[in-house]
Amino acid sequence: MINFALLGAGRIGKMHAELIAASSKATLSYVFDTHAPSAQALADKYNTAAANSIDEVLKDVSVDAILIATTTDTHVDFIVKGAKAGKAILCEKPIDLSTQVVTECWEQIKDLNIPIQIGFNRRFDPTHSSLQRKLADGEVGVLQQLIITSRDPDMAPAEYLRHSGGIFRDMIIHDFDMLRFITGEEVVEVHAVGSTLIDEGLAKFGDVDSVMLTLKTSSGKLCHINGSRRCVYGYDQRIEAFADNGMLQSTNPLPHSVSTSNAAGTQSQSQLNPFFIERYQQAYQRQLESFIDALINNIPPSPSFTDGMQAQILADAAQESLDAGITIKL
Amino acid sequence: MINFALLGAGRIGKMHAELIAASSKATLSYVFDTHAPSAQALADKYNTAAANSIDEVLKDVSVDAILIATTTDTHVDFIVKGAKAGKAILCEKPIDLSTQVVTECWEQIKDLNIPIQIGFNRRFDPTHSSLQRKLADGEVGVLQQLIITSRDPDMAPAEYLRHSGGIFRDMIIHDFDMLRFITGEEVVEVHAVGSTLIDEGLAKFGDVDSVMLTLKTSSGKLCHINGSRRCVYGYDQRIEAFADNGMLQSTNPLPHSVSTSNAAGTQSQSQLNPFFIERYQQAYQRQLESFIDALINNIPPSPSFTDGMQAQILADAAQESLDAGITIKL
Amino acid sequence: MINFALLGAGRIGKMHAELIAASSKATLSYVFDTHAPSAQALADKYNTAAANSIDEVLKDVSVDAILIATTTDTHVDFIVKGAKAGKAILCEKPIDLSTQVVTECWEQIKDLNIPIQIGFNRRFDPTHSSLQRKLADGEVGVLQQLIITSRDPDMAPAEYLRHSGGIFRDMIIHDFDMLRFITGEEVVEVHAVGSTLIDEGLAKFGDVDSVMLTLKTSSGKLCHINGSRRCVYGYDQRIEAFADNGMLQSTNPLPHSVSTSNAAGTQSQSQLNPFFIERYQQAYQRQLESFIDALINNIPPSPSFTDGMQAQILADAAQESLDAGITIKL
Amino acid sequence: MINFALLGAGRIGKMHAELIAASSKATLSYVFDTHAPSAQALADKYNTAAANSIDEVLKDVSVDAILIATTTDTHVDFIVKGAKAGKAILCEKPIDLSTQVVTECWEQIKDLNIPIQIGFNRRFDPTHSSLQRKLADGEVGVLQQLIITSRDPDMAPAEYLRHSGGIFRDMIIHDFDMLRFITGEEVVEVHAVGSTLIDEGLAKFGDVDSVMLTLKTSSGKLCHINGSRRCVYGYDQRIEAFADNGMLQSTNPLPHSVSTSNAAGTQSQSQLNPFFIERYQQAYQRQLESFIDALINNIPPSPSFTDGMQAQILADAAQESLDAGITIKL
Repeated sequence: MINFALLGAGRIGKMHAELIAASSKATLSYVFDTHAPSAQALADKYNTAAANSIDEVLKDVSVDAILIATTTDTHVDFIVKGAKAGKAILCEKPIDLSTQVVTECWEQIKDLNIPIQIGFNRRFDPTHSSLQRKLADGEVGVLQQLIITSRDPDMAPAEYLRHSGGIFRDMIIHDFDMLRFITGEEVVEVHAVGSTLIDEGLAKFGDVDSVMLTLKTSSGKLCHINGSRRCVYGYDQRIEAFADNGMLQSTNPLPHSVSTSNAAGTQSQSQLNPFFIERYQQAYQRQLESFIDALINNIPPSPSFTDGMQAQILADAAQESLDAGITIKL
Repeated sequence: MINFALLGAGRIGKMHAELIAASSKATLSYVFDTHAPSAQALADKYNTAAANSIDEVLKDVSVDAILIATTTDTHVDFIVKGAKAGKAILCEKPIDLSTQVVTECWEQIKDLNIPIQIGFNRRFDPTHSSLQRKLADGEVGVLQQLIITSRDPDMAPAEYLRHSGGIFRDMIIHDFDMLRFITGEEVVEVHAVGSTLIDEGLAKFGDVDSVMLTLKTSSGKLCHINGSRRCVYGYDQRIEAFADNGMLQSTNPLPHSVSTSNAAGTQSQSQLNPFFIERYQQAYQRQLESFIDALINNIPPSPSFTDGMQAQILADAAQESLDAGITIKL
Repeated sequence: MINFALLGAGRIGKMHAELIAASSKATLSYVFDTHAPSAQALADKYNTAAANSIDEVLKDVSVDAILIATTTDTHVDFIVKGAKAGKAILCEKPIDLSTQVVTECWEQIKDLNIPIQIGFNRRFDPTHSSLQRKLADGEVGVLQQLIITSRDPDMAPAEYLRHSGGIFRDMIIHDFDMLRFITGEEVVEVHAVGSTLIDEGLAKFGDVDSVMLTLKTSSGKLCHINGSRRCVYGYDQRIEAFADNGMLQSTNPLPHSVSTSNAAGTQSQSQLNPFFIERYQQAYQRQLESFIDALINNIPPSPSFTDGMQAQILADAAQESLDAGITIKL
Repeated sequence: MINFALLGAGRIGKMHAELIAASSKATLSYVFDTHAPSAQALADKYNTAAANSIDEVLKDVSVDAILIATTTDTHVDFIVKGAKAGKAILCEKPIDLSTQVVTECWEQIKDLNIPIQIGFNRRFDPTHSSLQRKLADGEVGVLQQLIITSRDPDMAPAEYLRHSGGIFRDMIIHDFDMLRFITGEEVVEVHAVGSTLIDEGLAKFGDVDSVMLTLKTSSGKLCHINGSRRCVYGYDQRIEAFADNGMLQSTNPLPHSVSTSNAAGTQSQSQLNPFFIERYQQAYQRQLESFIDALINNIPPSPSFTDGMQAQILADAAQESLDAGITIKL
């Protein structure tokens, strides 16, 4: 049994608490949140303790791992403290909005050899990971081109967006990780364009709501990502992999399937999942199990801290490409 | 080259004329129709002759084959005359509405060894025939249950229906043939129910517009046919074959495929083909080629006259089952 | 909060325990099973008590409802005892294998006015119930024909089948209920055929493994059910409703969706759910919520005891039709 | 009736001859080809004359229109001659591989006011044009992003490719036209990347086999095109249009549809159309009818000569972007 302390009792923290509680290999000993009543309420729900401070958690030797689901600006501090206290760490993405801060964090912890995993949950999605595995198994030969469609259902609040680090660091970072996961290669060129087609107000803080990227990997594979902050038909998350012997598609799973045929054609009432918590429910669960299994079997968890750094570097490059209107070489 | 005379210049006759003209292995020498202007118009279109009488056609030794697309009540007369004149025959279904007449016809021609094929065109539909071939090839093992969905887009005119011989002999006869084609077995039991759910007026002449049948084959395979005279979403023609190692589905081919996704779900504007001429266009073409190839290669064409008789017998049994409310054993 | 006692700690009992535990409107006070260690283990898992006897449960006034998930032969005894003790009842289907026993049970309890619901969970399946609602809302007009496909993934053990009451009472009873639920009418005619196409051994105790039924409702709607004890491609559960203004299809929801396109065509690796616990997970959950809501709001739960009786009567009629080779009028 | 002379009796010329012959509004008077026997053979097939020279055709006042289906390097010469002779012109794409030559051609003919249409047949594809119309009708609101997938089944012969003008001018030019057709806007930025992932030999003459492009239109819409010279699963031609109220997909029409379900999942045997003649058969037919109708109704045919020029300019920009590794502004 892996004994967890959960840092962060917000929306995503609540989901993690539920997953830890449901796991047969995990226990939850603490919930910590800077907003004490939230921590207490969540702790009560799972018959566990609310921690008064992060130190209280870290000095408890019964705690094996910390799951960091607090706001992004606190991640690095908690990672460093947790690592120094010898705790295994599962940290929500992104590590930090600044690649420099991420790099400095890495300098502080890399020699501690603490098991640390970054929350790129989509690697554990049954559909996407099946595509990756088939590709890795050579089922359609050698990958040539990759297309990732990544469209959020709706704009986050303006205040959130203002501090989000921009669409690449906040949202597309998941797709950068998927690209690395699926191609198994590093990116050597990034070209990004963007527009404010949904909310012109984003321009005030240099952000966009609609983007298209072209990325080239070390062996010359061509990758495209399209992203949007608003998608009225639901959370659209698809991948297409064109290879020399065939093509793989990971399409949106449909919650259920009733269709109506009439003189106008066929109407499927099935709607996409509304957002990531519903869409990637299984992925979050499998992510947790993967982390736990790595701890139990004493193997390095994956995706690693450096996977988190690499995605960050791609986000920076995309932002620079967008800002300068040029292709960035890496 | 096979030289054809076409009997019948109505809707279906026009289609056959076009197919003969388009075939690289066939020529069209005559068009005959009791309505002379129709024959003349069609003959003109294809730069060929309108025959004044059936005898004119039959005594011309250059005519290899007659294609009978006249009204049902003339089929047997033309078959017998054609066979006696030594012409190969491709005759539209049904042979006749009376099984007794069909049987008597067979008695007159069976010893003449004339190549004769009955127009169960669906055996040549790329989709349905592919299902049959996969099943015959054992791709999903041994067939256990078969479901045929057969729904016409709309009611034929009342006058047509009054003389149609009823839904089983006029419409479902195609499905009886498909059942025999796909199972490769004879039917030993027929149970039919029907209702007038579309037009109660059919009851006046003992007909129904909506039917369901259960048929059992010699080895115990269970078959279901559902049929309707009206289907607002188009011409619905599907087959499902359940076998011990899998299932085959022949679904409706869609003319084209644009879909709209919005907050209400996904709407495909693709509509089914309106009716049999569009749906079974390729089937009619391949039927003609199959007949021609049989003549050229001197092998018996298929489906045969006796296939036509067997479908007729099933139609009679279905009608008897419906009328008497009992299961008919064959 | 509705306080439950669970009777039966087998496979289906465990699932119900989990659902009760997960419900925010329910508590679980007792688990009873004739096999005491099973009851104890399940009670321990949910921090509740194992009951030593059914009487211990029934005399506890804090128990609002009993959920009967024991073997079929015990259902009626527990229903009568529960009803006399004033407990609300949610009982797994079928009520009993004998319609006479069911009827006698009804005589004993009908005047007690106890809320009682029979476990026809499929009425709560999001997909099937959506079809029913759309039909009831007139979205495609008036229903004319209904097709239910109901195929289990694999044969149950021979010992189970021997005492199952036969395929109609054990398996197709769900489909009889769906038919009544969707048509909103009573059946007036039943015709059933069956074969032993999977295991001839079933013939020894008069059972079959493959069935097709035609049922006619009071207004003349035509319904077809096809069923099989073995379906190698998974648990196949579909409904098609043909109406005068269109058609509704409830198809198999797919767990996830990756497809491979290559020179051979397109292969979807998505498999159907293996069996009812996975397929109808949401249905079981919504069934429980529906029962709880009925109790809280003091309205009669549905499907009712008489719904259970009616499905039983259809199962008897189907068996009689199969045995005698005739159509049964009701 | 529009009287045509066909220039070019190669593969595409044969298809046009067949379409002209089949049209009820067109006649075919001449076939011309520099290879006289090819012209004669095709003329014989349609009972018409083989022209000995282009002049013979142009001085015949009964000829209303010329259809240019010769090699690309002859297009401009025939366009200018045809225009000066007062003939309406339907010319296969591209007008010429050199934009300068195209521009000079335009200078010579623009004041002659001859009806001239460029053979961007895909504008007439039922599926793609339906998407365009729905978008223009505002069915999903305002377009934001567009994705065009354009993958040929296999590499053309090396000799053809060497003189093809490169993948952008030879193949992707169709997609540039589709982009302009669907967005209804001009492109202001082009970014292209490419790799030789199929045949490294292409690098010898500066070509690539796999490309990805990002294009931005005047209002900031973002467009992506992915292209490949080889696609083992068939001719893959799809369009996705993301708009503020929904999404439109134009997917590959399937010739027919049989699927096999077994323990491994569901396999559709339907394959994509092999190549453009099969895929765009209806488009070519509707293109011809559109041209004829424009002549009959005395309206300018579309897509116009300048549409052809604009696509050419985009192809040049893409080539420049690929060669220089920069984004090209227009």
